[in-house]
Amino acid sequence: MPGGVGQQVLAISGGVGGAKLALGLDRVLPPGQLQVLANTADDFEHLGLTICPDIDTLLYTLSGRANRAQGWGLEGESWNVMGALEALGGETWFRLGDRDIATHLWRSTRLAAGRPLSQVTAELARRMGIHSAIHPMSEQSVRTVVETDEGPLPFQQYFVKRQCEPAVSGFHFAGMDTAQANPAVLDVLRQPLSHIVICPSNPFVSVDPILRLPGMWQALRDAPAPVIAVSPIVGGMAIKGPAAKMMRELAMPVTALGVAEHYQRSYPGLLDYFVIDETDATLAADIERLGLSCRVTATVMHTQNDKQSLARYCLSLEGN
Amino acid sequence: MPGGVGQQVLAISGGVGGAKLALGLDRVLPPGQLQVLANTADDFEHLGLTICPDIDTLLYTLSGRANRAQGWGLEGESWNVMGALEALGGETWFRLGDRDIATHLWRSTRLAAGRPLSQVTAELARRMGIHSAIHPMSEQSVRTVVETDEGPLPFQQYFVKRQCEPAVSGFHFAGMDTAQANPAVLDVLRQPLSHIVICPSNPFVSVDPILRLPGMWQALRDAPAPVIAVSPIVGGMAIKGPAAKMMRELAMPVTALGVAEHYQRSYPGLLDYFVIDETDATLAADIERLGLSCRVTATVMHTQNDKQSLARYCLSLEGN
Repeated sequence: MPGGVGQQVLAISGGVGGAKLALGLDRVLPPGQLQVLANTADDFEHLGLTICPDIDTLLYTLSGRANRAQGWGLEGESWNVMGALEALGGETWFRLGDRDIATHLWRSTRLAAGRPLSQVTAELARRMGIHSAIHPMSEQSVRTVVETDEGPLPFQQYFVKRQCEPAVSGFHFAGMDTAQANPAVLDVLRQPLSHIVICPSNPFVSVDPILRLPGMWQALRDAPAPVIAVSPIVGGMAIKGPAAKMMRELAMPVTALGVAEHYQRSYPGLLDYFVIDETDATLAADIERLGLSCRVTATVMHTQNDKQSLARYCLSLEGN
Repeated sequence: MPGGVGQQVLAISGGVGGAKLALGLDRVLPPGQLQVLANTADDFEHLGLTICPDIDTLLYTLSGRANRAQGWGLEGESWNVMGALEALGGETWFRLGDRDIATHLWRSTRLAAGRPLSQVTAELARRMGIHSAIHPMSEQSVRTVVETDEGPLPFQQYFVKRQCEPAVSGFHFAGMDTAQANPAVLDVLRQPLSHIVICPSNPFVSVDPILRLPGMWQALRDAPAPVIAVSPIVGGMAIKGPAAKMMRELAMPVTALGVAEHYQRSYPGLLDYFVIDETDATLAADIERLGLSCRVTATVMHTQNDKQSLARYCLSLEGN
């Protein structure tokens, strides 16, 4: 593996799609060698609880307890709190399982006691037996607001309550101006790193909020490790979530090329490699013309083996 | 029934013991004729939730869903949140069932949105199909602190975490100096009332916090309705809870007479009737010597019929 034995790998991830590759990396790397930089811009306060959907998906996925059939939450989950809340006429549009609620209660209590989110996340990861480090992108609150034809919607209102139905015209990230990149991540970037992998997460609502933190993408670009992005769009569709629908509504080409253009335009010089699926091999030349090294492999991750194969593939790419 | 058809009855109640008689009153009175004044001095903040144990016991009891075998919480309860919280190493000494947590989430969310506790409690009661009104004693926070041989303990630390083991030397009620009696209760006292019933709750930690609110016991005394207290001590024992242990540690006679003396000394002229169990009939003369009308009946409530019989008995007592 290039970059030297024992060097750290940094993965940048949103929720479900990104967490699959993070899991692959977690399993193929020696314990403790993966650092995951997680989106927190879809965090929200609900029922008095601080809910961090992407961090939780990473926690549940890396601890081997994610509900794979459902695509979110914990396997073997029960819904007794929601059932009773529904009987009271409470808000149940955001479905919280009983065991999931325990995570939120634990986190919310710690945050209320003044612990920073990074520390609370690290404690949760340790208590769930996870060896990789999971870093919230910021200690401060950054919240995605989706601009739609019905007006601005807080992300979870758009994503869960409205099921991504309103047409998207843009995004803004409340709090971004005053938030700071998690200092622990900047520390990681000052250590020797072998690879930086941008997982196949939603570019607009999972990856952009991370990269737009003050100084973040420049620090990633300036790190000596190669930066490898995996396309979340395969064959004109998002494997999971609203990325393709968003691109269509934003009048972008709904292709891996569209994603590569978005990254290259927004963060010039950040990416070294852009990894696309074999389905999209014909796009490789156009992507190379953007000034990126395009690589083609099987990127759709159904099985554990798929995840580890894609992880190994990313780790096989060498610095330019 | 004296006092006129349709006149309201006010019951003063703490948790389990008091709620039994409140249930009896609720069932024998026409719907909407019972007002319950509930202790909130054992409320506390736990896991970020505002928990009101006495109000909840009243809600669950009057809606017919209390867990009678366990003596607290809901029947048919499940414990999945607690199990997961335990696995995370979270605080589980105060056992919260899944459905019970829904109540706390609902309440905490409303309180955080700025609704007063009285309104939140009324909404919960309505949503649970309860016809009687349940009034928190105050909108403000009053918290019982138990003075013990191990130092002062917040009530739930003493009651649940330490299982009432430390020896009690006294009580104080944090916040009492600045709290106000719930104005809705003072309004009720200005309406025609047929009876005021002090249920067989713990005198020190359930009834005293209510009566010691500024102006409360005087307003109760000055209401034209007879004030009837039912002894929580029967045959030298508390039917439920630590009242007898507390009286012993406070060097009071552990008898219904001891309770009557406590009320008569603390709130002179408040009580018209003191109702004791047949077991304690020999104490009646001493209680009468305190200047109270002592009445003897079966006060131990095992069955629904026991509760309704005691309720009817109390309502049969006429104003002097």
